[in-house]
Amino acid sequence: MKHNISTPPPCPRASHVIGLCKKFVYDSTFTYPLVIRTGKGCYIEDIDGNIFLDFSSNIGACPLGYSHPEILQVLAEYSKNGAHKIAGQDFYSEEHALLASKVSSITPENFKAFFVNSGAEAVENAIKIAYSRMGPLPGVSCTGAFHGRTLGALTFTFSKPVQKANFPEFAVKRIKFCTADGDPDIESIEPLLKENKAAFILSEVVQGEGGYNFASLQFMKNLSKFSKLYGVPLILDEVQSGMGRTGRWWAFEHYDIKPDIMSAAKALQVGAAIYHRDLEPARQGVLSSTWGGGSRIDMAVGAKTIDIIARDRLLENAAKIGSVLKKSLQDIVGKGGLVDVRGLGLMIGVEFDTKQNRDSKLVSLFKKGLLLLPAGQKAMRMIPPLIINDEEAQEGLEIIDEVLRSSQ
Amino acid sequence: MKHNISTPPPCPRASHVIGLCKKFVYDSTFTYPLVIRTGKGCYIEDIDGNIFLDFSSNIGACPLGYSHPEILQVLAEYSKNGAHKIAGQDFYSEEHALLASKVSSITPENFKAFFVNSGAEAVENAIKIAYSRMGPLPGVSCTGAFHGRTLGALTFTFSKPVQKANFPEFAVKRIKFCTADGDPDIESIEPLLKENKAAFILSEVVQGEGGYNFASLQFMKNLSKFSKLYGVPLILDEVQSGMGRTGRWWAFEHYDIKPDIMSAAKALQVGAAIYHRDLEPARQGVLSSTWGGGSRIDMAVGAKTIDIIARDRLLENAAKIGSVLKKSLQDIVGKGGLVDVRGLGLMIGVEFDTKQNRDSKLVSLFKKGLLLLPAGQKAMRMIPPLIINDEEAQEGLEIIDEVLRSSQ
Repeated sequence: MKHNISTPPPCPRASHVIGLCKKFVYDSTFTYPLVIRTGKGCYIEDIDGNIFLDFSSNIGACPLGYSHPEILQVLAEYSKNGAHKIAGQDFYSEEHALLASKVSSITPENFKAFFVNSGAEAVENAIKIAYSRMGPLPGVSCTGAFHGRTLGALTFTFSKPVQKANFPEFAVKRIKFCTADGDPDIESIEPLLKENKAAFILSEVVQGEGGYNFASLQFMKNLSKFSKLYGVPLILDEVQSGMGRTGRWWAFEHYDIKPDIMSAAKALQVGAAIYHRDLEPARQGVLSSTWGGGSRIDMAVGAKTIDIIARDRLLENAAKIGSVLKKSLQDIVGKGGLVDVRGLGLMIGVEFDTKQNRDSKLVSLFKKGLLLLPAGQKAMRMIPPLIINDEEAQEGLEIIDEVLRSSQ
Repeated sequence: MKHNISTPPPCPRASHVIGLCKKFVYDSTFTYPLVIRTGKGCYIEDIDGNIFLDFSSNIGACPLGYSHPEILQVLAEYSKNGAHKIAGQDFYSEEHALLASKVSSITPENFKAFFVNSGAEAVENAIKIAYSRMGPLPGVSCTGAFHGRTLGALTFTFSKPVQKANFPEFAVKRIKFCTADGDPDIESIEPLLKENKAAFILSEVVQGEGGYNFASLQFMKNLSKFSKLYGVPLILDEVQSGMGRTGRWWAFEHYDIKPDIMSAAKALQVGAAIYHRDLEPARQGVLSSTWGGGSRIDMAVGAKTIDIIARDRLLENAAKIGSVLKKSLQDIVGKGGLVDVRGLGLMIGVEFDTKQNRDSKLVSLFKKGLLLLPAGQKAMRMIPPLIINDEEAQEGLEIIDEVLRSSQ
């Protein structure tokens, strides 16, 4: 397969769908006039038959790409099940137990999970577990953080002003998210915890929506160390960076630390707050959710996804292809306004000189058949499916090279 | 089909699954040792082959019961689609436009929708739309209210103390939810709005989790009248009561009022904040959600559900069978601790003298093959699938009669 723009968007069928959406739904964060029909491998097909090479993975939520035969098999199996979506905290299902045991096999020892419907709900429940233990004290989070759009998670988000405007907040203390070990603020967590009681420290390891910023080793180690010293739970948000994206199951594994509570979603297919069992709310009913643990198709796909990532050595593939992509892009820094390339595995931030240039480059890449999404003010997030191979990586690099050169 | 308990739970296969769940997941609100395998019509089948008559509909989330042939057909169609779950606020899909236009056909004129992943997220986004317009002022909500478990929605929830313990809250003003027109507090909204600026009034029309309490006509009319008079948006939470449950599409239609913003979920298969277009956030990006509008299977099932409810006159069926169930149960008030039966359509509250008695009756009904769930302190919620027929209603009534008489 190869990318192929036969009917340049917006095409007639796409325009009809987009027209209906403009009439009936809120125009939230749509980037392109792209109406997805299906896909295969690393390629997305729109409803007008154009084929895009996908370096976005639906923000990491499609780690096995599209039409993976074993995922289609799971869907076929559940298409015959007459109770595919149930109240999963009121009634049990085998898929709930299956996904929980798979998640347990890739998370720290003695961790348990609470499944919900999204990354935002995963963070809401992660902080609820901490509040439940610590009381409604201020939470600590980082500059540039993105933890989701529900109002609890949004309190601790500092990515873009438009996401927060006019909304109320809980008590929050902010520290700088440090990406360099030499940052003078790298120890700022200590005086903060010395002077304030806190319910938790909440941080990403790699900031996604905030711009693909990678925590410095020392910064993460300090969060972990002072969280233990002051008895404040450390929550790591792995919604975008987890499930193999960085070449290990969780980004924190690159830092030789462990969280007390973590959040996962996207590639997992459902949201999950995952916590050390010592932090489990003492009483039944502190947490719940009608569909939490009840989206049986999503849970079965999530469990199968974990199996496939492990069996097909996709962590190794993410590390290998990620390093090819990063190196090749670093070689063309300076061209077309490209100023920085940084990454871990298949989570690569591609930074431009200006927002305007980044936005215009995204559109040029889209028009040529390569799909990327923005992150932060001036970056693109490069997160192809974990199944990507060398040829597909080269195909994407060629389009990028062409677009960057043509703007010289 | 008929209920049939051949292997009384907990059975061997169920015990294995429940054992894994106890080990790996938080024990939130599980009521019975029931592991759902599949279902047909109004009947659920567990993994040991027992068949339960379902008067719970997975808290209303399965309005067409189980294995509905047209829903299975939708699942079969999507089992061949290689991109079944996408980032629905970044990329468009036909299902997004389809569900939006169906929702538009059953909601007030000039309303638009924002699709999310759950009822809690629907409420979060409904209040965000109000805050976005009004600023971070206090919100008004009602005693006994349940609006979801994420921390924004939870602020306005006053159902059970365990749901709120130790969590922080936004500014909130509480009024009494009045179920009788003669209630002395029925006009309490007026002095409250006179003395305080507020971001919104948030209320259910029928309290679900709070105990199946039905708003009095005058109470609802007052909320509507004073919301207009003081320019404070009225948000009606129809997550459980909506989509035909009460014999009309939305419970507020029984009250001859209209909300400014409403929330829906459960029977709709996805969450939705639905709002008058005059209240739409002025800027792009104020609201978003990775999977919002992107769970293509759920959106396609939701759209088909609306079609089937309309075509098969299930609103009329809900009104008809609901009135049979309510009348028959009212005839046995006084037996076995049954103290009150109240309802609209197929949303019926069955109140007992004590919590202990309610809980023990639920277990007896379960053991005999009838599935009901608790609501509030002492009530059962009776919410069978909207497709229920006379025979199935009688089958359920017979089990209830037997259980209530045997405890005389």
